[in-house]
Amino acid sequence: MPLSSYRNFELALAFAAQATEKQMDRLLPASEEPEARLYEAMRYASLGGGKRLRAFLVLAGATLFGVSKSAALRVASAIEFVHAYSLIHDDLPAMDDDDLRRGKPSCHRAFDEATAILAGDALQSLAFEILAHEDTHGDPGVRAALVLELARAIGPAGMCGGQMLDLEAEGRELSIGAVTRLQRLKTGALISYSCVAGAILGKAAEPSRHALSAYAHDLGMAFQIVDDLLDAEGAAAEIGKTPGKDAAAGKATFVSILGVERARDQASRLAEQAGRHLDPLGPKADLLKQAARFVVARRA
Amino acid sequence: MPLSSYRNFELALAFAAQATEKQMDRLLPASEEPEARLYEAMRYASLGGGKRLRAFLVLAGATLFGVSKSAALRVASAIEFVHAYSLIHDDLPAMDDDDLRRGKPSCHRAFDEATAILAGDALQSLAFEILAHEDTHGDPGVRAALVLELARAIGPAGMCGGQMLDLEAEGRELSIGAVTRLQRLKTGALISYSCVAGAILGKAAEPSRHALSAYAHDLGMAFQIVDDLLDAEGAAAEIGKTPGKDAAAGKATFVSILGVERARDQASRLAEQAGRHLDPLGPKADLLKQAARFVVARRA
Repeated sequence: MPLSSYRNFELALAFAAQATEKQMDRLLPASEEPEARLYEAMRYASLGGGKRLRAFLVLAGATLFGVSKSAALRVASAIEFVHAYSLIHDDLPAMDDDDLRRGKPSCHRAFDEATAILAGDALQSLAFEILAHEDTHGDPGVRAALVLELARAIGPAGMCGGQMLDLEAEGRELSIGAVTRLQRLKTGALISYSCVAGAILGKAAEPSRHALSAYAHDLGMAFQIVDDLLDAEGAAAEIGKTPGKDAAAGKATFVSILGVERARDQASRLAEQAGRHLDPLGPKADLLKQAARFVVARRA
Repeated sequence: MPLSSYRNFELALAFAAQATEKQMDRLLPASEEPEARLYEAMRYASLGGGKRLRAFLVLAGATLFGVSKSAALRVASAIEFVHAYSLIHDDLPAMDDDDLRRGKPSCHRAFDEATAILAGDALQSLAFEILAHEDTHGDPGVRAALVLELARAIGPAGMCGGQMLDLEAEGRELSIGAVTRLQRLKTGALISYSCVAGAILGKAAEPSRHALSAYAHDLGMAFQIVDDLLDAEGAAAEIGKTPGKDAAAGKATFVSILGVERARDQASRLAEQAGRHLDPLGPKADLLKQAARFVVARRA
């Protein structure tokens, strides 16, 4: 059943997760070469877990523009590999020093630090390899655009820049504007890329791209506020990672600045606003609207 | 003066280094954003040092196929950014734990571990961003090919795989075949990419690409044998990094397996053989032939 025929968001998310997982498994098979340990670590950290929200966003966006499922699944996989790389490096002792990820030992705990660093490095390269391969799209202009936009989203002006801000945020007073910018770079840029990747694949016209960009912006922010709420309130068993870390590290978050109530209101408002950006796309965008509501209601 | 008009290799190398350095400085300007520290670390680790042999190989290869200097310089910069990323991560305490690089404190010593990890990550992304940008080549097929081949050269089946083998080599007996494969992945793959990048940019015909690939293979191996010789014999002041590390780590190298004399002979034979692969390209390949001789004669 194609994703576009799902009317229930949670079923659609589960379907997207399963299909992407299968594709990722094919794109990153186990190795029997002497360097097999690297592949093991890459597979350990990227397969078998996660909500795959980013993959869902790619697939749902792709259905809006008649993109082939196989092309969308390759891009979804590339993004999930990048996401896994970022989590491996974030969890390292020199970074957030987290022993737990997706309910199991983080990569450097299951393997060792050096292997974890390398696994993250290699996952980043793998993502670009997938995007640039002709199996992803017959038009090299589309492939080059996919690479360019991903590189921008995760480089110094995107995810890495956000992580730098996050490291420097420890024990500092940050304004709401500074926290917003930090999160827009750290998590927002990759979520935005996930939302517009389908439009790039489908060579969508500017108004559609713009609608998806605006949706992605609000969705990403709502997502992050809820992450902060979950970190402040959550139990490790539910969220699959160590809770209360932000407070322990003295980090300013949306919750520490706005308080729980206002943060929750803000997330709901953003999710609703995100959905409205998609109105011009008609009912076929319903799944993405549901995704925005899900992001706010999620418990993990 | 264009690179192709240099008859003296060392002048040509110096020219290539200077032109690439200038281009890298433009592609990675200092930042005044709050995440400026990340840019500082990236610039610290990638600018102001190194022989820029890989950049030279790109530029010299590009002159064979009439590629514009600006295109070649962008690709040369991307490769040097990747090389810098790999050195930052190799030097980390969890990896080779080296305090010295290019005669100054390694990135994690000058900054801190977290910043160094991020700087490496961001340099990798930056390299792909440069390659995929339309300023690098008007034909998106060329850009996609540049990205694809770089990703393969530095991913799990290339540089990262080689580094994994290197980590696992500590204290183990390795055959000459195993060491050869390790080095082919760890340093050979990126050197090969540097040699063929000009052919990709110039859409060179298969025989020329093949000649350059064969040249690159032998050059890369000769380069690595000399690296091992320098590590075994060198002084820190000359090579700009800590010498004697391989022996201290109990790592098998070409020198530990072949002995100094045979290793030196082998390097010379490979350099000569590398040059012969370029005979079909005529006298315009002389600079690359000289590069092979230089690689063997170098003292740092």
